[in-house]
Amino acid sequence: MTLTDAPTTAASLRDRYVAIRGTTEALAAPLSPEDQQVQSMPDVSPTKWHRAHTTWFFETFLLQPSLPGYQAHDPDFGFLFNSYYEAVGPRHARPHRGLISRPSGDEVARYRDAVDEAMAELLDRVETGELAGLSDLIDLGLHHEQQHQELLLMDIKHVLSVNPTRPTYRRSEHTSGADPGPAGWVDHDGGVVSVGRASGDGFSFDNEGPVHDVLLRPFRLADRLVTAGDWLEFMADGGYRRAELWLSDGWYTVNGEGWDAPLYWFRDGDDWWIHTLTGVRPVDPSEPVVHVSGYEADAFASWAGARLPTEHEWELATRDVSVVEGNLLPADHLHPVAAATDAPGVRQLFGDVWEWTASPYVAYPGFRAAAGAVGEYNGKFMSGQMVLRGGCAVTPGDHVRSTYRNFFPPSARWAFGGLRLASEA
Amino acid sequence: MTLTDAPTTAASLRDRYVAIRGTTEALAAPLSPEDQQVQSMPDVSPTKWHRAHTTWFFETFLLQPSLPGYQAHDPDFGFLFNSYYEAVGPRHARPHRGLISRPSGDEVARYRDAVDEAMAELLDRVETGELAGLSDLIDLGLHHEQQHQELLLMDIKHVLSVNPTRPTYRRSEHTSGADPGPAGWVDHDGGVVSVGRASGDGFSFDNEGPVHDVLLRPFRLADRLVTAGDWLEFMADGGYRRAELWLSDGWYTVNGEGWDAPLYWFRDGDDWWIHTLTGVRPVDPSEPVVHVSGYEADAFASWAGARLPTEHEWELATRDVSVVEGNLLPADHLHPVAAATDAPGVRQLFGDVWEWTASPYVAYPGFRAAAGAVGEYNGKFMSGQMVLRGGCAVTPGDHVRSTYRNFFPPSARWAFGGLRLASEA
Amino acid sequence: MTLTDAPTTAASLRDRYVAIRGTTEALAAPLSPEDQQVQSMPDVSPTKWHRAHTTWFFETFLLQPSLPGYQAHDPDFGFLFNSYYEAVGPRHARPHRGLISRPSGDEVARYRDAVDEAMAELLDRVETGELAGLSDLIDLGLHHEQQHQELLLMDIKHVLSVNPTRPTYRRSEHTSGADPGPAGWVDHDGGVVSVGRASGDGFSFDNEGPVHDVLLRPFRLADRLVTAGDWLEFMADGGYRRAELWLSDGWYTVNGEGWDAPLYWFRDGDDWWIHTLTGVRPVDPSEPVVHVSGYEADAFASWAGARLPTEHEWELATRDVSVVEGNLLPADHLHPVAAATDAPGVRQLFGDVWEWTASPYVAYPGFRAAAGAVGEYNGKFMSGQMVLRGGCAVTPGDHVRSTYRNFFPPSARWAFGGLRLASEA
Amino acid sequence: MTLTDAPTTAASLRDRYVAIRGTTEALAAPLSPEDQQVQSMPDVSPTKWHRAHTTWFFETFLLQPSLPGYQAHDPDFGFLFNSYYEAVGPRHARPHRGLISRPSGDEVARYRDAVDEAMAELLDRVETGELAGLSDLIDLGLHHEQQHQELLLMDIKHVLSVNPTRPTYRRSEHTSGADPGPAGWVDHDGGVVSVGRASGDGFSFDNEGPVHDVLLRPFRLADRLVTAGDWLEFMADGGYRRAELWLSDGWYTVNGEGWDAPLYWFRDGDDWWIHTLTGVRPVDPSEPVVHVSGYEADAFASWAGARLPTEHEWELATRDVSVVEGNLLPADHLHPVAAATDAPGVRQLFGDVWEWTASPYVAYPGFRAAAGAVGEYNGKFMSGQMVLRGGCAVTPGDHVRSTYRNFFPPSARWAFGGLRLASEA
Repeated sequence: MTLTDAPTTAASLRDRYVAIRGTTEALAAPLSPEDQQVQSMPDVSPTKWHRAHTTWFFETFLLQPSLPGYQAHDPDFGFLFNSYYEAVGPRHARPHRGLISRPSGDEVARYRDAVDEAMAELLDRVETGELAGLSDLIDLGLHHEQQHQELLLMDIKHVLSVNPTRPTYRRSEHTSGADPGPAGWVDHDGGVVSVGRASGDGFSFDNEGPVHDVLLRPFRLADRLVTAGDWLEFMADGGYRRAELWLSDGWYTVNGEGWDAPLYWFRDGDDWWIHTLTGVRPVDPSEPVVHVSGYEADAFASWAGARLPTEHEWELATRDVSVVEGNLLPADHLHPVAAATDAPGVRQLFGDVWEWTASPYVAYPGFRAAAGAVGEYNGKFMSGQMVLRGGCAVTPGDHVRSTYRNFFPPSARWAFGGLRLASEA
Repeated sequence: MTLTDAPTTAASLRDRYVAIRGTTEALAAPLSPEDQQVQSMPDVSPTKWHRAHTTWFFETFLLQPSLPGYQAHDPDFGFLFNSYYEAVGPRHARPHRGLISRPSGDEVARYRDAVDEAMAELLDRVETGELAGLSDLIDLGLHHEQQHQELLLMDIKHVLSVNPTRPTYRRSEHTSGADPGPAGWVDHDGGVVSVGRASGDGFSFDNEGPVHDVLLRPFRLADRLVTAGDWLEFMADGGYRRAELWLSDGWYTVNGEGWDAPLYWFRDGDDWWIHTLTGVRPVDPSEPVVHVSGYEADAFASWAGARLPTEHEWELATRDVSVVEGNLLPADHLHPVAAATDAPGVRQLFGDVWEWTASPYVAYPGFRAAAGAVGEYNGKFMSGQMVLRGGCAVTPGDHVRSTYRNFFPPSARWAFGGLRLASEA
Repeated sequence: MTLTDAPTTAASLRDRYVAIRGTTEALAAPLSPEDQQVQSMPDVSPTKWHRAHTTWFFETFLLQPSLPGYQAHDPDFGFLFNSYYEAVGPRHARPHRGLISRPSGDEVARYRDAVDEAMAELLDRVETGELAGLSDLIDLGLHHEQQHQELLLMDIKHVLSVNPTRPTYRRSEHTSGADPGPAGWVDHDGGVVSVGRASGDGFSFDNEGPVHDVLLRPFRLADRLVTAGDWLEFMADGGYRRAELWLSDGWYTVNGEGWDAPLYWFRDGDDWWIHTLTGVRPVDPSEPVVHVSGYEADAFASWAGARLPTEHEWELATRDVSVVEGNLLPADHLHPVAAATDAPGVRQLFGDVWEWTASPYVAYPGFRAAAGAVGEYNGKFMSGQMVLRGGCAVTPGDHVRSTYRNFFPPSARWAFGGLRLASEA
Repeated sequence: MTLTDAPTTAASLRDRYVAIRGTTEALAAPLSPEDQQVQSMPDVSPTKWHRAHTTWFFETFLLQPSLPGYQAHDPDFGFLFNSYYEAVGPRHARPHRGLISRPSGDEVARYRDAVDEAMAELLDRVETGELAGLSDLIDLGLHHEQQHQELLLMDIKHVLSVNPTRPTYRRSEHTSGADPGPAGWVDHDGGVVSVGRASGDGFSFDNEGPVHDVLLRPFRLADRLVTAGDWLEFMADGGYRRAELWLSDGWYTVNGEGWDAPLYWFRDGDDWWIHTLTGVRPVDPSEPVVHVSGYEADAFASWAGARLPTEHEWELATRDVSVVEGNLLPADHLHPVAAATDAPGVRQLFGDVWEWTASPYVAYPGFRAAAGAVGEYNGKFMSGQMVLRGGCAVTPGDHVRSTYRNFFPPSARWAFGGLRLASEA
């Protein structure tokens, strides 16, 4: 899609509903019932849970309040598949999602079918205008489902990685990329810049607004992402053992966790290997480094004599590109790929890896969370997390925007987090 | 079987092998792939793991050393399905068994088939006398598998219980038992008594020997198990809130864990309900109390002005009965049942519940663990645990003996632990 | 001091050195050797440690590098009394400071005397111009010591509070303040505003610079701090039990910790009492609430339909006052006091309580940490913390400034944290 | 004292009271207020607490019930200085004893003086026969105080050891002992043996009775303790790294804690050094090994092809010696010393180190705890612990007996635990 045009509201919601719901099932299809059951750490949710929770979202926020006569598919599911909506009622504890063997994956499939059927009826009424006011909420449900498509892939990657047999989600051959060469700098003037997106301007999450002005000093941005090859240099130079490069919390974490390489890297003799969704193979120096925490990204930037960009600097840089395109779903890499060697300007802004920024995730001036339970979507998480920008190889391409604010705690590594350097101009 | 005769060695090992291996699969059959995947706490193992680990036992201790040309079914399984045998090599960490989605349950079924096929060949050779020396080890493998049949049921009960929807393993109607009336006492003289079982005298575990003399003072034993009705009186009398009844470690545990009733009991208004393998229903006062810890058993005995029997007192009492019979598998109660009201002597010695004793689990005088890896079976656990005697409703009936020493830490509640009172004569 | 004039450099450093070092000892004087030994939680340091660590700072950063022939007072002290300077070498683990009974308090007093004697010699050389370049570093050491004076009082308050006998640091009578009446709003225009302090403009910490412009929208600030009386209303309205008011991390914390009132409040029957450095007494509704976490401050603001100010908004508000004055040391309240009822404008900007802001503690644009070990002073803590502004009742009055950025994790309650409301204009 | 004669009741209780109370203060005298304040781990209590708690015992169990008109010295002390007597009321949490800076050590001294003064009055009445019935309880209080003298030394040893400066309790020169040569075996016949002590037969704790018969098989006992030299051989042979030597719980602990030598041993280059109460020095191979856990003792015995003695075997061996004598207080070694090389029979039965036995700490047949709060003294700890016998270098010599049952969890190392080997005859 273009950066300036909102997703056309003329497009049939129904078509998008069917397509997106189908994509979730297609992503789950290569996984056995057992694969879909496992929760490998508290941050991870089982595939089965993602399939059920996204369905619960439509049932809870659309069908129950708005489809006359709708009966809950199963009265227990409201408890089991609520993620974090306090206003909706009590819920099953997140770290125990992997302990719930029933409903089975098959029963969850029936739940999805039943809700899809009821949603078809609701979508009819939306199309006829009877319930036109619901289209924004349905759109939210679809974007929510797309977020969970990415989470499903992030999570199953972790689930498979803790298995000592190192199984593969979907095997494919890896072709090493071309060496992208050293990064160059692209200068930006800064000044008073308008950032964020207004709620009427196509779909966006509430945390992307209000549109407001910020004052930026002149800065420069690297024209490509930091690569695995760059990271190997950082490691060879003692990056993980030099306290002076690290934030205090980062130094505590790196030592407490024993980190000496990105997540999913492992050593075999003298060589570093990597576990990906498509198989295990040697680290490819040309590809962007991924699965580093915000602490590691910050330490790398210190080591490189640079810093991370702010989220506003990154957003300003996207003004130079006209469309959201890159290594995003439905591309089937499922992993970042080497930057094009012949492209001008700032490459890899969208896709490949979520770029850690220097910006804590806080409210934009004048932010108000949406009313009701969906107001819990973003605002209550504005504490202790950092903003990441741009989407990654497992983000649906029509889900991300130049104003999109992803967020994770700086210690998180199971997200597809990488980085790009910035510095004063 | 009788108490004095060992299982006849004339019985075809092959028949027992086929029967016992089949029973394991039959016990797992009602469970979905997801049910079989879950590990609800570190003490619990997934059903799938039990099925694989018992197979690994035959593969590791019989096929690999003794069947010429045998190739491991899968080289990873030695790591994944070793439980605690240090001598056999490194192993997957116990608390993470539930995270291993692959091999799937179907692959485990194939593993079982492959090993059973190879074992058939080995059993042929045993039958022809070529490998006659292996029959003891095969017998150990079969008793090991029977132990895991009980563990499988104990564990899946816990797995299902943590699901807020309270699913059932195998639904059946409960018929309340007749009130067994107050317990009576049966006196025993004590004196110098021979306990334990010699290794040549039919199958027994190494921890049941050597046979040795102990000096017992006169004592009396209750003629029935403590019931749920008795336990309700204990609770009503403040049993869980009166420090003077408890061992110090028990008091610490009961407060730390917030225990106020046996495991699997829950309150619904004024009534106590119970989660069983066959469904959820009100507590039946006539049935033996089960799923109490050793601490609770000890506190109850203090409250009742009595004590727990020693393991030797219990063993002496079995001299009065001629056969091992009771509520044991393949009976399908899967839960203790009320004592017969018309039976003389000490009732319920075998079956229903494992009876907590006052005896720490330590070596009998002169005990030596078996040589090699199977020597890790029992001896290394002789620390911090208590002996339980008699088998329970989910113990295979031909697996338990009067000399059988089960053991658990006094804090454990997920085993089918109950109690019988004793006192000085 | 005035807000615009830096502390005069003409003032004898020696006089300030003697005065500030003496103040530390005077603050410790009411405390027994046992009081000075205790560390009541990992965040707290023993009084004895504060006295030694501040001395170590002068020894390590001034005497050892710059006083010819200086010998370390005790070679072990470099390990024991280094707080967090990685560049200086290994150090004793922070949570174990309370376990070090030797050196005793008396030995620490001798350490202070020895270092003060050597510093006198060094200060002579500074005064004569021989070592003039050191005066900035000595100034840093003195401000460091003043920070630890506040920490000493914060920490001993906690130490005494965990004693069930509720002992008092220095008993004095409390006179209830006059009701300050409802808070009013003072409007500010916003716009492009210069914030921060340049390093040459009197003493400041590195994190206060560089001076830079920020763009502020119009806003309003409450003309007084939130009071204990306001807080009682919040509590009465279910403030601690309403999820919708809280950040997700805050809600998790408030439930995990069981918070239902500020730290140091306790209930006696229907009344709330408070533990202060000067004694235990009923909560005084007229005084500013203190010892609330950033999470609680944020929840209160939500409840009040307002928000917390940003650090820049707060700094802009100080342009309206000409001097830093308020309830600060050496005033002997040691606790916030009620706002003056007859004062115009924004009251209580300085002193009473550190005001939680909405601003995460991050680097100002262009920030570079100082070179060498003292560069670890501030920069490495720029993660996971929030900025607080204005000083409190236990902050030395000549230590705080309009540009001063204090910082704590949003969960911290043992600092003297309170709040003032802000909102859009 | 002799083994068969009880301490003469003709001896003036008053003299013993004064002497024993004075010894406690003498043991505390070398310690500063800060030393006496520190609790270095939950198992350890501060010296100040020991001094206060032993005083509380006399106040609570003697003065308050039996001295007319006695007023509690301080109403808070009943809460602060109750150790574990549930029947006496709530108490301060054990792990937080080190956080209570007030009362100070000086105030505790005044508490001791006040109670001693009141006890003098009570002892007068006991001597005149007016309160003759109290002498047993006073005797219990004195033995209780002697137990805490040992605990005081055990605990302060740990407190000083966690200080990286390795301070000394009371410095003295160490003279290496003569090599005791290889251990020999002394045979015992076993048979039916009477063990334990009747309550009327001089002072004993309730857990030493009732006297009862046990049936022992023939056994042999090493004629000396295991030495540090023996232990170095065990270490050199991989003792800490060979799973097959260890109980499962022991193996888990040794790996989890990273043990590779006894507590208080540390390596300096190729040499092993030891921290003792009298200073730091190289390990002396001739002296008994001490500060090993029960797990280590058991593993050593396995390595040596032997086992630990049962408590009854040990008790039987004391029948061969006529008096309790050995390296016990008031001898001032404060550490085990090498066995005499010219002594016949089983050496070192009393003193030097508490000998870990193979016996879990459980009730003797027919045991009943004393009525009332003092009944909590021993019985409630009969779970999860092992019996140790014989006293150690910091046990008062007139406090230990052949029937004395000390007990610690098998993981405990800060007690003066060592071992002697046993085996089948």
